[in-house]
Amino acid sequence: MKADGMDEKGLSRRQMVIGAGVLAAGTALARFGGWPGLAQAKDGTTEKWPWPYEKLDPATTAELAYQEWYRVFCGAAVISSVFTQLREKVGEPYRSFPVDSFVFLEGGLVGWGTVCGSNAGANIVANLIIGPRIAGADAGHQIGADMLQWYSDTPQPVFMPKEPRVKTELVKTTAESPLCHVSVGKWMQASGKPLGSPERKDRCARVAASVAYHLVELLNDWKDGRYAPASAWSPAKEFGITGQPNCVECHGADIPAPPMAQKT
Amino acid sequence: MKADGMDEKGLSRRQMVIGAGVLAAGTALARFGGWPGLAQAKDGTTEKWPWPYEKLDPATTAELAYQEWYRVFCGAAVISSVFTQLREKVGEPYRSFPVDSFVFLEGGLVGWGTVCGSNAGANIVANLIIGPRIAGADAGHQIGADMLQWYSDTPQPVFMPKEPRVKTELVKTTAESPLCHVSVGKWMQASGKPLGSPERKDRCARVAASVAYHLVELLNDWKDGRYAPASAWSPAKEFGITGQPNCVECHGADIPAPPMAQKT
Repeated sequence: MKADGMDEKGLSRRQMVIGAGVLAAGTALARFGGWPGLAQAKDGTTEKWPWPYEKLDPATTAELAYQEWYRVFCGAAVISSVFTQLREKVGEPYRSFPVDSFVFLEGGLVGWGTVCGSNAGANIVANLIIGPRIAGADAGHQIGADMLQWYSDTPQPVFMPKEPRVKTELVKTTAESPLCHVSVGKWMQASGKPLGSPERKDRCARVAASVAYHLVELLNDWKDGRYAPASAWSPAKEFGITGQPNCVECHGADIPAPPMAQKT
Repeated sequence: MKADGMDEKGLSRRQMVIGAGVLAAGTALARFGGWPGLAQAKDGTTEKWPWPYEKLDPATTAELAYQEWYRVFCGAAVISSVFTQLREKVGEPYRSFPVDSFVFLEGGLVGWGTVCGSNAGANIVANLIIGPRIAGADAGHQIGADMLQWYSDTPQPVFMPKEPRVKTELVKTTAESPLCHVSVGKWMQASGKPLGSPERKDRCARVAASVAYHLVELLNDWKDGRYAPASAWSPAKEFGITGQPNCVECHGADIPAPPMAQKT
């Protein structure tokens, strides 16, 4: 059975997801009989998936994300760009979701350079709308993984807003990582622009816009029933530890071998 | 003015936060006149901070997080441990928050080994309850940073549940990083236990419980009006880039110098 994205067995992804969903539901019912708070939430509207979704225009969404970056920064900008439109087109539960709380995703979580907030925001949106894999569907989880892979592999920023604050094209760099520190660092190195420069800020605003654009492409595909997962990165299965594909970038040639389960 | 946790100026944190809040509010109103979706949300209850909070027992919260790890894994377990209790004690807006969507935080975001989900979950809880820094208060942002620092510096797991699934004490390791890959990797190296082992799973469940425990300590302090920030890590100001304190662990002796703004 799959456990926290870290399984080592040969079951198909779908088998694992269904298994986990059924088991989790039973266990939760048994364990939380005494917690009325949880039971009430389960009777509400926000933990029934999928949330109603209407297809959005990727370019409009990207323009919104670009504008919102200058108000709420990367992670919340991606969430806001999708939810602001769905608040209008659909209403609840989008109106009740506290988008602005996610400002803290800036700078890779309060400036600590961990996952780029745009990636975190995209994962939040996909999993709020489609639902978590333990609810029996795995497209949200898969779209989240696709976004990390696409972000890592793509020369960024892709999207050029109609009226950018910085009027020029910007250097594009491929992060080979979903981490803020690595992504921003490589771009700063290639551009020669400091962190506090208008160019770096506009670069990050355009990255958030690019992520919002591609996220909506995938969500629209999912809505049309023609979404197919694009990424197959499964480090737990392949390497016995969670992680990113760029091992040598931190480890050099000296990549430690994790303790592995004995094959039975 | 502070921008995405990445300023380089000498303004005090509080000055920056207040400045950003006032400016952001004005800009948002001007920009989003045509977006009724956002305006409606602003009139609702979920984007008014702080959310009503009642002090919780840290040990009870940790026990809940430990149990919930086996259902929803690290990030959602931390959120659930706090919100399940507040759904009962307070009600809304906790009942409407879709906790289970955050299962994807597992394994450092869908297994990619970025930020440990427990840390992401703790930041989400603090910023949902207290609000984002752009709303004029910075304690949520600060508690989030404190949690990353505490997680990195503390031999983990701290918390021992009353009835652990693995009956023994577990090796404790200090991650010196908030990242899943680094934290789990160091523990696996010290313990010799593989990713799929019951011990590694119980270790991560106890880490989630430890994070939930400390998070509630800080939230209770904040509720009592005696919270004081414990961390002062500001890499953007000190080093000109977002990042973590353990530079040499990835870079070795060859730490690149980011382009810096010219002093005026």
